[in-house]
Amino acid sequence: LKDAKRTEFNRLLDELHPYDIARIYELLPIKHRNRFLSFLNIAQLASMLQELDNEQQQNVLNHLGIEKAVKVMDKMDNDDLVTLLEELLPESKEKFLANMKKEESQVVQDLMNYSPETAGRLMTNRYVWIPQHYTVKDVMNKLREYAEIAESINYLYVINDKKQLIGVISYRDLILSEPKEQVETIMYERVISVTVNTDQERAAQIIQRYDFLALPVVNHDNVLVGILTVDDMIDVLIQEASEDIEKLSASGKDIDFDTKAPIAAYRRLPWLILLLFIGLVSGTIVSTFEETLQKVVALAFFMPMIAGMTGNTGTQSLAVVVRGLTSRDINKKVVMKLIFRELLVGIIIGLTCGILISIIAYIWQGNPLLGLVIGSTLVITLIIGTLAGTIIPLILHQFKVDPAVASGPLITTLNDVLSLLIYFGIASIFISHLM
Amino acid sequence: LKDAKRTEFNRLLDELHPYDIARIYELLPIKHRNRFLSFLNIAQLASMLQELDNEQQQNVLNHLGIEKAVKVMDKMDNDDLVTLLEELLPESKEKFLANMKKEESQVVQDLMNYSPETAGRLMTNRYVWIPQHYTVKDVMNKLREYAEIAESINYLYVINDKKQLIGVISYRDLILSEPKEQVETIMYERVISVTVNTDQERAAQIIQRYDFLALPVVNHDNVLVGILTVDDMIDVLIQEASEDIEKLSASGKDIDFDTKAPIAAYRRLPWLILLLFIGLVSGTIVSTFEETLQKVVALAFFMPMIAGMTGNTGTQSLAVVVRGLTSRDINKKVVMKLIFRELLVGIIIGLTCGILISIIAYIWQGNPLLGLVIGSTLVITLIIGTLAGTIIPLILHQFKVDPAVASGPLITTLNDVLSLLIYFGIASIFISHLM
Repeated sequence: LKDAKRTEFNRLLDELHPYDIARIYELLPIKHRNRFLSFLNIAQLASMLQELDNEQQQNVLNHLGIEKAVKVMDKMDNDDLVTLLEELLPESKEKFLANMKKEESQVVQDLMNYSPETAGRLMTNRYVWIPQHYTVKDVMNKLREYAEIAESINYLYVINDKKQLIGVISYRDLILSEPKEQVETIMYERVISVTVNTDQERAAQIIQRYDFLALPVVNHDNVLVGILTVDDMIDVLIQEASEDIEKLSASGKDIDFDTKAPIAAYRRLPWLILLLFIGLVSGTIVSTFEETLQKVVALAFFMPMIAGMTGNTGTQSLAVVVRGLTSRDINKKVVMKLIFRELLVGIIIGLTCGILISIIAYIWQGNPLLGLVIGSTLVITLIIGTLAGTIIPLILHQFKVDPAVASGPLITTLNDVLSLLIYFGIASIFISHLM
Repeated sequence: LKDAKRTEFNRLLDELHPYDIARIYELLPIKHRNRFLSFLNIAQLASMLQELDNEQQQNVLNHLGIEKAVKVMDKMDNDDLVTLLEELLPESKEKFLANMKKEESQVVQDLMNYSPETAGRLMTNRYVWIPQHYTVKDVMNKLREYAEIAESINYLYVINDKKQLIGVISYRDLILSEPKEQVETIMYERVISVTVNTDQERAAQIIQRYDFLALPVVNHDNVLVGILTVDDMIDVLIQEASEDIEKLSASGKDIDFDTKAPIAAYRRLPWLILLLFIGLVSGTIVSTFEETLQKVVALAFFMPMIAGMTGNTGTQSLAVVVRGLTSRDINKKVVMKLIFRELLVGIIIGLTCGILISIIAYIWQGNPLLGLVIGSTLVITLIIGTLAGTIIPLILHQFKVDPAVASGPLITTLNDVLSLLIYFGIASIFISHLM
């Protein structure tokens, strides 16, 4: 890089994808980074910035200075720009917005007014719209004019004179049509669109189901205001999958391989401390049955197995529910069917494991009644554990509680508490026969 | 539907997306389904079939009869057809292949020869390739000819006379160029491609990173043999996320809201039974410390908490690793850095929770030594639990063991065993002072 001649270097960069430029930038030693930045032109800086993580973006912006930074921002896609600005400190956000071209800063501020995780927040205004009276030839001319700025021009959206979305045409249609044909006659009228308030997850599902490359976004008057592109929707789908995994593991947000240890520990600790206190509840339960336990110490041998199994079956059910909630529309019928199904699953699993452990416990401890106590405990706790793993996340979903609350460890720990209560309850009833 | 006139009905269907037609079909009562099928033409049947699940596909094929079914298969995308055929019984697969057009069946059989989960298996042959000597005008003519059969024509791949991939042009380039310009001069030469043997996950990552709509697939001689489309890659990404969730929950493959209870129970049971036996190992450990436990029954009060916490921290680490493995390229340096990071996290978490529980145990049981035993146990088990949750999946990944083995419940259960061993080990040392 040091010896590279500027023009040669620029030709090379032009051939590279923004993703690769960003990776090269990150691999450079810090002292060479500024030199590298000075070699890039505004457009290259803009596309590279979109591929960097937030911390790096801020470093680059600080180095560029407000004037150049604003020029770069001008070239960025609006949706990426909004994400970048959201992460800045309020004062630097204001500073950048004030220095932008007025129309640009207006557009960006409009986007920021939509709630997070909606179609309005993620849409781009770099698309091509076609008035309904255009001919195919007019469209081709317009395309030539806009080809360089449009982010995605796979579909062309047709609007009427009120700017309402009334149809869509694809490249395929254009190529197969005569130049003088009217857009109105060849367009496809049943356009599937979302509104600015549609949840991003819902929009991503539509793109996935219909195999679309882009999806138009309209406001409440059906006026076309932007499009969602498939690449942004892939990121949404991946983000949702990560959230599911957080739910199952209570691992805390945003821990990846590069997170520093103290930060990772800090994000994980709140959950662990909460679970520690719930774990102490289990301890309190065991302590109330101290007498029972002292009389038949063998009861303690099966404690880990019973608590563990109940936790495991709950986690299994939770995984099925969490996964299903992201890909299905939920109604009362679906919920009732699911709960009934899981009840049946719980009964089958409970009976199988219960009978198995009865036999094992009988052989091991030579006490048929102990085997029966442990077996029947497992039947009951596995049914309850399965249902808890199903119903708790459904209730949380219903009340729109942050679903991270329905985490795997939480269900596991709750199931621990329940299973010990049942275990010692049953054991206490038969205590005189067990000794 | 009953009263619908055939032509009207067909016009309606023509306006609907295949996804919606498939959903309508599924919602119909079974007795009306065959009537519905008879209303569809071959092309409609083909696109609907691609949107149905495997069980429904087979019902439809059986109803159509071999002759019509083969015609429908002819119209299907090759990659979807291969998936369908793979799920059939070997004898019906052979029957369909024998009845297809020779060239079609050859293509399909070639695809089936690639290993599952590779680019070769998922690629489609419905794309447009352009010889390098073409002019822009020639390309437009070829496009008109192929527009109807090409699945995705967002990018046009340029090949030399050996059919090797040498460049790519986008619609944008075509529109912005003069008709008489040569393709060679406007094409982009640094085409990113994958080979037929590339793992599907890797290909999906490339599409995601570079925001591509399609990715060319070449054989070992760099001859262009197919393309991967973004919609198929979205399905791959979602499938990979589901596999991650299976790993964390050991919930078994392919359980969704529609799975029947006995099947769901059958898929979940193998794991639970394995975990039941591992849970008995915990029991055996506790039983060897029967004497210790009988002397200080209070030790049993903290058993669920210690085992639970160790399991939880392991699950958290597992989630971070599992998620990271799907999105990162792994090398020795990354692994060592990650293990060291998790060691630090374990130490921070262990010390925090350990000190906290020491104080609580001391206040609750009024025995400072008991508090110290429990606190120091938790420090050690949380460090070990964190490392186990990190190292076990990494080792399994290294040896390419089916990663489902590194499931959350398994790590939880293993951590149970380890933590009880440490707990009673420490307690036994101090037993004379604890009483």
